[in-house]
Amino acid sequence: MKNYKISDNVIRRLPRYLRLLDEIIADGTKRISSGEMASLMGLTASQIRQDFNCFGGFGQQGYGYNTEMLREAVASIMGLNNGYTAVIVGVGNLGHALLRNFDFGSCGFELKAAFDVNANLVGDTMAGIPIYDSNGLVDYIKENDIDLALLSVPKTTAKPMAEKLCSIPIKAIWNFTNVELTAPGSDTLIESIHFSDSLMTLGYYLNGHREDHN
Amino acid sequence: MKNYKISDNVIRRLPRYLRLLDEIIADGTKRISSGEMASLMGLTASQIRQDFNCFGGFGQQGYGYNTEMLREAVASIMGLNNGYTAVIVGVGNLGHALLRNFDFGSCGFELKAAFDVNANLVGDTMAGIPIYDSNGLVDYIKENDIDLALLSVPKTTAKPMAEKLCSIPIKAIWNFTNVELTAPGSDTLIESIHFSDSLMTLGYYLNGHREDHN
Repeated sequence: MKNYKISDNVIRRLPRYLRLLDEIIADGTKRISSGEMASLMGLTASQIRQDFNCFGGFGQQGYGYNTEMLREAVASIMGLNNGYTAVIVGVGNLGHALLRNFDFGSCGFELKAAFDVNANLVGDTMAGIPIYDSNGLVDYIKENDIDLALLSVPKTTAKPMAEKLCSIPIKAIWNFTNVELTAPGSDTLIESIHFSDSLMTLGYYLNGHREDHN
Repeated sequence: MKNYKISDNVIRRLPRYLRLLDEIIADGTKRISSGEMASLMGLTASQIRQDFNCFGGFGQQGYGYNTEMLREAVASIMGLNNGYTAVIVGVGNLGHALLRNFDFGSCGFELKAAFDVNANLVGDTMAGIPIYDSNGLVDYIKENDIDLALLSVPKTTAKPMAEKLCSIPIKAIWNFTNVELTAPGSDTLIESIHFSDSLMTLGYYLNGHREDHN
């Protein structure tokens, strides 16, 4: 692994490669060229080769990639087999939906527990996941060396809860609160899914800026 | 408005500007410089000025921006006052959570109806939104000139449902299915929120690549 900084755009294409590889492996494809991958993904072959070269390259010029080996290599770079652990903080409608439906395992994370302030939920088990009182969150993360907190609390409590998590510090926060969170002075990584940013971007393209769309 | 292609990175910063402006306007801030905005957002002042110059610029050098006017200008570019209309297709746990909790209005969209195949849901009203049978989806979109379909159906039906929507064609699909969708030969815009891509990106940074993180 080279030690220089790899751009966020490259890193964010890795899950797309993985998704494509899972699809074509399921279809029985054993080898694929960068050109074939490019046409399936709307990229160029040279961009794909450049991306893979950031990680030392995964194939031999002219032979295409062995799909299984390429999948293994990408999965290893993403840490899919590292056994990361996660908790959900906030079991409202969205936290509930993610708890029941989101496949943490396929992303390399094991969901261990969920936390909420609502006494009606505390003590329940949903889809095999216990729901504990938020008062016990910090101790649970420390004792179980949890890597990630999925934050799905109401907007009003997003910042104080993020500060509490950063002060432990937890290794990573996956932020669904639609509040811009930062971790000044903390080593916590924060990755946000901002639904409204995504929808507003569509609004921009609908607003007579269709020519800007890829 | 200039007619050249504006990069996706610029466009995706617009909702962040809007989010910041909403916060500081709520705090009573009347003017802000590009330098102050930069430090609040982790950007550079020159990047912010360049972004705004893509749209003709919104301020006079040395005076900072009037926060209310800047907010109005950004909102107008994003089409926030255009009265777009939306439906939800698929009222499982995630569709349900978005129906109940997501604030479509603040993004410039009015949620008009939801559709599902589940006879137990059809005919219900949730949070004021009627749930209709998916068989009536295409006619409803045509008759009501709906701009956007939020797609939250199961993975297995994502592609056929997207093809059906593109064939109308609906103007935009907001894709929550975690399936890679394309609209070949159709004018439909597709914007995807891939939860697993986001979580895998965190897995990458946790996997000894912290130095690549911004």
